[in-house]
Amino acid sequence: MKDAKIRLCVTQDLAQGQTIPLAQNQAHYLFGVMRLKAGARVLLFNGRDGEYLAEVVEAGKRKGALRCIEQTRPLQMPPDLWLLFAPIKKARTDFIVEKAAEMGAAKIMPVQTRFTNSDRIRVDRLQAHALEAAEQCGGTYVPEVTDIRKLDALLDDWPEDRQLIFCDEALVGAKETLRAQSGHKKWAILIGPEGGFSDDERSKLSALPFVTKISLGPRILRADTAAVAALTLWQSTLGDW
Amino acid sequence: MKDAKIRLCVTQDLAQGQTIPLAQNQAHYLFGVMRLKAGARVLLFNGRDGEYLAEVVEAGKRKGALRCIEQTRPLQMPPDLWLLFAPIKKARTDFIVEKAAEMGAAKIMPVQTRFTNSDRIRVDRLQAHALEAAEQCGGTYVPEVTDIRKLDALLDDWPEDRQLIFCDEALVGAKETLRAQSGHKKWAILIGPEGGFSDDERSKLSALPFVTKISLGPRILRADTAAVAALTLWQSTLGDW
Repeated sequence: MKDAKIRLCVTQDLAQGQTIPLAQNQAHYLFGVMRLKAGARVLLFNGRDGEYLAEVVEAGKRKGALRCIEQTRPLQMPPDLWLLFAPIKKARTDFIVEKAAEMGAAKIMPVQTRFTNSDRIRVDRLQAHALEAAEQCGGTYVPEVTDIRKLDALLDDWPEDRQLIFCDEALVGAKETLRAQSGHKKWAILIGPEGGFSDDERSKLSALPFVTKISLGPRILRADTAAVAALTLWQSTLGDW
Repeated sequence: MKDAKIRLCVTQDLAQGQTIPLAQNQAHYLFGVMRLKAGARVLLFNGRDGEYLAEVVEAGKRKGALRCIEQTRPLQMPPDLWLLFAPIKKARTDFIVEKAAEMGAAKIMPVQTRFTNSDRIRVDRLQAHALEAAEQCGGTYVPEVTDIRKLDALLDDWPEDRQLIFCDEALVGAKETLRAQSGHKKWAILIGPEGGFSDDERSKLSALPFVTKISLGPRILRADTAAVAALTLWQSTLGDW
């Protein structure tokens, strides 16, 4: 039983000996779906206190409680990287959020561009996807999903100490470009919609002093592929890989 | 009309002035679904002759023909990279094949490992996904999807001039490892199943002279994410990006 396989993200503070009452859906998942009994062990994290091994001390149908035994991992914050993306079809948007959490983005920000296919998103659904991905990938941190904002407004209001990577199809040589900028600590990656950026958006982005343009190779990548590829390039050059 | 948006993969040879009779499903797609009329232009490729701009010369309900006007791109072969992966749930397996084609893998090879969740695949379905991805991503080449083979048998029979990258969770420093091996031209990437590799498989892989182990960061990636991430690392270090 030492090898607890189930990881659960909870809202409560975690500390050795701490008892964690479970929400109804969590109790249903652990005791109804996964059939855990008292004494079973799971891993807990809350995005603040690292990861704890915990034991089931009460297993009811709609309620239950866990007790923290010991810390198994300290909190590991992801690098300070935001992923900005234009929402696409539902399944692929879900996918981008899941992948961004797995790949270690700190914040996930849907943006509305000129050619964005979909301007309505459900932040709570996307946030739940990010949470599940964090549970699954062994992370101790859940990236925040923000509400959708217009790209223009975001750029006008951009924090001056953050660099923005703009994935432009027309360029070559991503890693050299990134490596040359390793002095900067705060970053964001912008992935465009299926229709690409408008000419206005491209000119505006290209002219901004905090924007770095990189290429993702000679083939045209779908937005979900581009998100994972750009996150990989960044993590392997400037991040925690 | 010059900016032909539709790209179609055909089986016939392509050359200037060549007439291409369409299969029933292609005619249905172009004339029934996309409503093209005679004179409309599309882009054609066949994996051998590059890309051609072609014009609709006959548009029937179930048949039709195109005529090649001029070559718009030469054949661009992807680097000699195979992607070996253990099939997972259907949607995620489809996804891996789509992404491998987009990312420029030359050959896509499902493998059966000890913990492979699914040992049955439909090669024709996966091949159709690879073809669609090639149509979409602007590639002029369609990677071949092979039938599933046992990992053991594949390794016993491994071509001696091909390196194999094995994504091991326990390691660090992927790019330095790859860069040090830039003398090799033929490569393959192996992505494990959701349950990881067995101890036997890990020992066997680690002992093989053609195997390079790399890490994909501190979080555990799903198989589909790992495929895109490993392809990105390879393409940006040794490939055509």
